[in-house]
Amino acid sequence: MSVSIYIPGVSAEVKNDSGRQQGAYPLDMWYVAAHSKELKDQPVARTLLNEAVVLFRKGDGQVAAVEDRCCHRHLPLSNGIIEDQGIRCGYHGLLFDEAGQCLEIPGQAKVPRKARVHAYHVREQNHLVWIWFGSEVDSAPNCEPPVYPVHDDPQYVFDGDVYHYDAPYQLIHDNLLDLSHLGYVHLKTIGGNAKLHMNAEMKVESDERSVHVVRHMPNSDAPPTYLEAYPFKGKIDRWQEILFKPSHLEIWTGAVDHGTDDISDPNRGGFHMRGFHGITPETSTSAHYFWTMATNPTQNVEEIKAKVVEQTELTFDEDKVVIEAQYANMKRFAGTPMIDIHVDVGPNRARRIIEQMKANPEVTV
Amino acid sequence: MSVSIYIPGVSAEVKNDSGRQQGAYPLDMWYVAAHSKELKDQPVARTLLNEAVVLFRKGDGQVAAVEDRCCHRHLPLSNGIIEDQGIRCGYHGLLFDEAGQCLEIPGQAKVPRKARVHAYHVREQNHLVWIWFGSEVDSAPNCEPPVYPVHDDPQYVFDGDVYHYDAPYQLIHDNLLDLSHLGYVHLKTIGGNAKLHMNAEMKVESDERSVHVVRHMPNSDAPPTYLEAYPFKGKIDRWQEILFKPSHLEIWTGAVDHGTDDISDPNRGGFHMRGFHGITPETSTSAHYFWTMATNPTQNVEEIKAKVVEQTELTFDEDKVVIEAQYANMKRFAGTPMIDIHVDVGPNRARRIIEQMKANPEVTV
Amino acid sequence: MSVSIYIPGVSAEVKNDSGRQQGAYPLDMWYVAAHSKELKDQPVARTLLNEAVVLFRKGDGQVAAVEDRCCHRHLPLSNGIIEDQGIRCGYHGLLFDEAGQCLEIPGQAKVPRKARVHAYHVREQNHLVWIWFGSEVDSAPNCEPPVYPVHDDPQYVFDGDVYHYDAPYQLIHDNLLDLSHLGYVHLKTIGGNAKLHMNAEMKVESDERSVHVVRHMPNSDAPPTYLEAYPFKGKIDRWQEILFKPSHLEIWTGAVDHGTDDISDPNRGGFHMRGFHGITPETSTSAHYFWTMATNPTQNVEEIKAKVVEQTELTFDEDKVVIEAQYANMKRFAGTPMIDIHVDVGPNRARRIIEQMKANPEVTV
Repeated sequence: MSVSIYIPGVSAEVKNDSGRQQGAYPLDMWYVAAHSKELKDQPVARTLLNEAVVLFRKGDGQVAAVEDRCCHRHLPLSNGIIEDQGIRCGYHGLLFDEAGQCLEIPGQAKVPRKARVHAYHVREQNHLVWIWFGSEVDSAPNCEPPVYPVHDDPQYVFDGDVYHYDAPYQLIHDNLLDLSHLGYVHLKTIGGNAKLHMNAEMKVESDERSVHVVRHMPNSDAPPTYLEAYPFKGKIDRWQEILFKPSHLEIWTGAVDHGTDDISDPNRGGFHMRGFHGITPETSTSAHYFWTMATNPTQNVEEIKAKVVEQTELTFDEDKVVIEAQYANMKRFAGTPMIDIHVDVGPNRARRIIEQMKANPEVTV
Repeated sequence: MSVSIYIPGVSAEVKNDSGRQQGAYPLDMWYVAAHSKELKDQPVARTLLNEAVVLFRKGDGQVAAVEDRCCHRHLPLSNGIIEDQGIRCGYHGLLFDEAGQCLEIPGQAKVPRKARVHAYHVREQNHLVWIWFGSEVDSAPNCEPPVYPVHDDPQYVFDGDVYHYDAPYQLIHDNLLDLSHLGYVHLKTIGGNAKLHMNAEMKVESDERSVHVVRHMPNSDAPPTYLEAYPFKGKIDRWQEILFKPSHLEIWTGAVDHGTDDISDPNRGGFHMRGFHGITPETSTSAHYFWTMATNPTQNVEEIKAKVVEQTELTFDEDKVVIEAQYANMKRFAGTPMIDIHVDVGPNRARRIIEQMKANPEVTV
Repeated sequence: MSVSIYIPGVSAEVKNDSGRQQGAYPLDMWYVAAHSKELKDQPVARTLLNEAVVLFRKGDGQVAAVEDRCCHRHLPLSNGIIEDQGIRCGYHGLLFDEAGQCLEIPGQAKVPRKARVHAYHVREQNHLVWIWFGSEVDSAPNCEPPVYPVHDDPQYVFDGDVYHYDAPYQLIHDNLLDLSHLGYVHLKTIGGNAKLHMNAEMKVESDERSVHVVRHMPNSDAPPTYLEAYPFKGKIDRWQEILFKPSHLEIWTGAVDHGTDDISDPNRGGFHMRGFHGITPETSTSAHYFWTMATNPTQNVEEIKAKVVEQTELTFDEDKVVIEAQYANMKRFAGTPMIDIHVDVGPNRARRIIEQMKANPEVTV
């Protein structure tokens, strides 16, 4: 049941003919680049898949992403300002459009054709901004970005943030696919009874591009947050569903009053907490973690939402400490084998999917 | 019109037979090592051209510079104290003179001849301390250091500082030789009208060891600082003159009442701001920037001087942000070509001079 | 009289067949790993001889040391919690005993035999915790750890701390074996008259595994600390004795009323300050410095002890500044020869002992 764990900075990395770094992550897929709410009147500088990108929203509201450098003397364009037509460099004022073409060189009559920078394919949908790299630098996307309708579903309210991790992105996959760590990592927050979490019945299903982990806890006590957010009457039937996709994870947890609904049915009622977890490599050794938490309180909606988001933050802070400490130690103990335990079924299937995608670029996700 | 831009840390560097690093900067010339006012009763530790130097002023007022290490166990001599005869190590008390010779080993009768450290040629003139490295470690200077009589001219008052740059020194040359960046970098301070600066008529002259850029703005409005410092009557004729030398730049700006004097004549009257910009490599990837600003206010002399120096600082802070961001990005985009634009005439000539000096060491500057 | 000084990070280092790093320090000897007082209810993470170790005190009071990683996914065990039977990982709850064996994998019936981490030989005695590495990873100690009865002697009171040094451990040996630096490094604290310290008569004796430096200052004035701690009547006879061993130094200083006792006799009376200095490599370029200071005040015992320990701290702070500056400079001037002076007799003998031990592993210390 052992799986090879790619250790960035230790395992081999190569660049392909296009200059894109191979070996650390699949290239032919969409990744989350930003929350929509991040792109207002200031450019956002962000390294994604080891490339320096500037994201900005033009005057017409369209989102754009180009290389974060001016083609003249390499000042990051993110040091400049956004204008209606594009982004203007903060050194000598060169103006670039969303295709990376220079439109104006102040004081110079002619703009040479080569005055341009690389532009990226981006799409904004469901309050998320997606970006495509591709194993060939100029290849077009071969599929549409993932949909996440929860963000546009009126029965939910949500909020979120982006965290930076000094750890490779797959360690965050491992963590999210294995909720058994709740008992030990999250003792102070949502953990509670470690044995209960470790021994909960777990079902793992997977296909070529996803892993689905389901855990049910019927006839159990409602945790305090649930009681505050929803008028439960007594014992509850709880579920935890984790859906892994290479670009992001969807973690849907919730509960109904005991015996009142089929918790295997996606149309079940009750109280819901739906987490979106967009995990995008920054480099082979660091990651961006774009997350939101959506919920459906029946009362004090904004207050409950704020509370749920705040508790989520506290939990993620705990995970970050553990994952970054884990990665730092993986580097110190590079070459030392790891052993697998029962909780690794889900994480290992996800790692195999990523391995297959890296080995077979340009296959539609 | 393209010019090869040496990117330290990326382009090749070699050491010559003397152990001096070649390729990053000319060695056979004088560089600014310090402002005179920096050398009081404490030693100054400073890395210059990748060598660790301690500068100090002896009891007789003479300035000296030696390797910043004790020959015994390598404690930096800058951790020690200055005495009349030289500098004494702060570990076991060895005393060194300005020639690097150990004069005393406390508790030991005999001082071995080899108890010495390398000493540097230094000269103090015009309130500046100059240092000579040479492409051969023990070579004597083949010329005198540059003069800068402005600092000793009673019609001017001046002050200055030294800035540290996490960027190679030639990026500061580029920046100073091209005042067209005022419109974009210095929007908040001295910039004002970007188009005006970008479109001002510019004359560039150069010889083997200097570049001279002159821009005239006749019959224009006086900026607020000028009005406060000098009793202008209305419209003014302004000039900007940039003189690049390999060791430093002199930037002379100013104005007379419109039509009252020939602003091409160095003896022109009016209000003057004269900047000295000594750019000395710390390493191939970092630099010291020794600057002063001299001016000739007709009233409230100390107040105007303080104000002009303060505004100069604000401007240089803005340049530092841009240049350091540019260099950080040059490293990320190493290998990606740059394109030249109209403003690069002056900077590119300066780069050619530096290239020639590196290729032909020991030619008098 | 010159001695080759090993410069970590510059001189060659190799790993032996067991994977242990050779060349930087002897492996077949006991090193101080901790003060006993450090091991309470929390694990202590400490890198020792380039290995990541977690130290902890089990429920029965026994001290244990194992590799600081969980065998599952490499989280440092020091992020976990101590239980009666051992230490439990803070990620998925694996429990390890003092032999490094995993005792429990929560939620999994069977614990595989290979679920274990490396354990270290440790001994606690005289309020110190000692650790053995060995040039072979699984070799047993071939001797007992050093004794230090001063810590258990009722005539003394003591306290101490552990300092971290960004410098290789032998530079601390050099410093402690040569008290002549008191005059220059400790001008502000215990130094006083530089010439006196530099010229004091010094006797150096050594054997295969120790160096003994003795300095006597008969009929001298009592320093203020001595006067406060002990009822001296007038002039005093002072001694300084430095005993170097590869694992630690013992520095015994003190004084009797002039002419009242033989200060060469270890049973001499008077006022005593007895320093313990356990110097343990963290890596080849950094060190842990475990120190205590024991004294025998006749009055205001706790107050005098606190004062003596506080002054010791101030002195060690000064040494730390010097030694770290020295090492930083040694790296800058790597390859530049050092010269020896009269004070280096003791330090050089100690360096020869360490060289011999590195060349001949597995010889009893």
